[in-house]
Amino acid sequence: MERAYNFSAGPAILPVPVLEKVQKELLSYKGSGMSVMELSHRSDLFEEIIGDAELLLRELMNIPENYKILFLQGGASLQFTMIPMNLMAGKKAYFVNTGSWSEKAMEEAAKIGDIEVLASSKDKNFSYIPEIPRVPSDAAYLHITTNNTIEGTAIFTPPETGDVPLVADMSSNILSSVYDVSKFGLIYAGAQKNIGPAGLTIVIVREDLIGNVAGLPAMLDYAVQAKNGSMYNTPATFFDLCSKIGF
Amino acid sequence: MERAYNFSAGPAILPVPVLEKVQKELLSYKGSGMSVMELSHRSDLFEEIIGDAELLLRELMNIPENYKILFLQGGASLQFTMIPMNLMAGKKAYFVNTGSWSEKAMEEAAKIGDIEVLASSKDKNFSYIPEIPRVPSDAAYLHITTNNTIEGTAIFTPPETGDVPLVADMSSNILSSVYDVSKFGLIYAGAQKNIGPAGLTIVIVREDLIGNVAGLPAMLDYAVQAKNGSMYNTPATFFDLCSKIGF
Repeated sequence: MERAYNFSAGPAILPVPVLEKVQKELLSYKGSGMSVMELSHRSDLFEEIIGDAELLLRELMNIPENYKILFLQGGASLQFTMIPMNLMAGKKAYFVNTGSWSEKAMEEAAKIGDIEVLASSKDKNFSYIPEIPRVPSDAAYLHITTNNTIEGTAIFTPPETGDVPLVADMSSNILSSVYDVSKFGLIYAGAQKNIGPAGLTIVIVREDLIGNVAGLPAMLDYAVQAKNGSMYNTPATFFDLCSKIGF
Repeated sequence: MERAYNFSAGPAILPVPVLEKVQKELLSYKGSGMSVMELSHRSDLFEEIIGDAELLLRELMNIPENYKILFLQGGASLQFTMIPMNLMAGKKAYFVNTGSWSEKAMEEAAKIGDIEVLASSKDKNFSYIPEIPRVPSDAAYLHITTNNTIEGTAIFTPPETGDVPLVADMSSNILSSVYDVSKFGLIYAGAQKNIGPAGLTIVIVREDLIGNVAGLPAMLDYAVQAKNGSMYNTPATFFDLCSKIGF
């Protein structure tokens, strides 16, 4: 069979052995008599899927113990809102503006609280990565986009931010470039480019940044999601692919 | 092969012919050389999937022209927040409290604005459907849960609400009971019980209820989702199942 190469900016090509495994198990996942799409998310089989996915990601990215891994829905675009809701806590958030995804993140954060652009390459149509000055020590966080799909630039060495949490949208280079997770307060990524199927969204967040804002909507509160092991409500189907693909 | 019966409250059993079709097409959807999980959501094939799903749902539920159908993520639990954000607009929302899902909806709405319980069966452990008085005409909306999975009760005849929009969580009886959609302002449902795979969330909303609140987070704004045909960002994978299952 002819396999197509897909260079679109959306969902990426998946490894054939992974697809073949999914295909084989589609009517009975691990002999359960059920498709993975029919499994209860409260079942042992599903607990194993989510547990394995977390362990493998922790190993691959060398994620320290004091970071939670959350498997959420809504894509990076919903994180543009959840991050300021959970992390601003009345303080100002700073942004490095390196392209259209940075701008979308800024636009959404500005609906939640005060933001400021710390560095930008907008003057030359985002054709370069700007020098990043030191972020003020009273900042809520500094946000960067590690890889700019549309503009073709990347930040491989994250800026030093002292005690200010560094937040990174890694949607388009997570697991393809090596970063020291301990330099970041929060890393997030939609899964569809580098990890697995669309819909799954990964948030890696340092524990001390969770639970500092009261009264958030439950689904948008990292504390609620962390406390429930990413299963406050039914997780998205085919999530399990992650335990077989990039991981 | 032995097929299991799954009576869990989470994802439901799916028809074998549907699973077999998905299985067959898993490495090449409609001869595209790509799995449906690899298709760009900007492709003609995906446009056809989402278009067909909408048409079929419109036909099955007899949904009038002046209602938008949105295919979202986050489950009914995220709608507990999105509905008050989009529909309250400074007014008070009223609730019929018929069980644990009604209570969750109330709890989340109370984080967004003023709410009031119009009727409740909490006094007898939600063992009956209470009589529902007339909702005040200045209400933002009246919220009901049409089927209470845990408590085993259902509202088959929706209350008359005059000009006040009636909002219904139909997660556990959508497409299994017949309702006159024109009696509702908004109907919402997680797909995993009665329609298809988990992660997909359906919102059927009357057009005049969209776009009345400015400055909402893009992902949580029905106006943004409607304007972008539910593709403001990458839709969840295996969404396409809906065009084959309940529909």
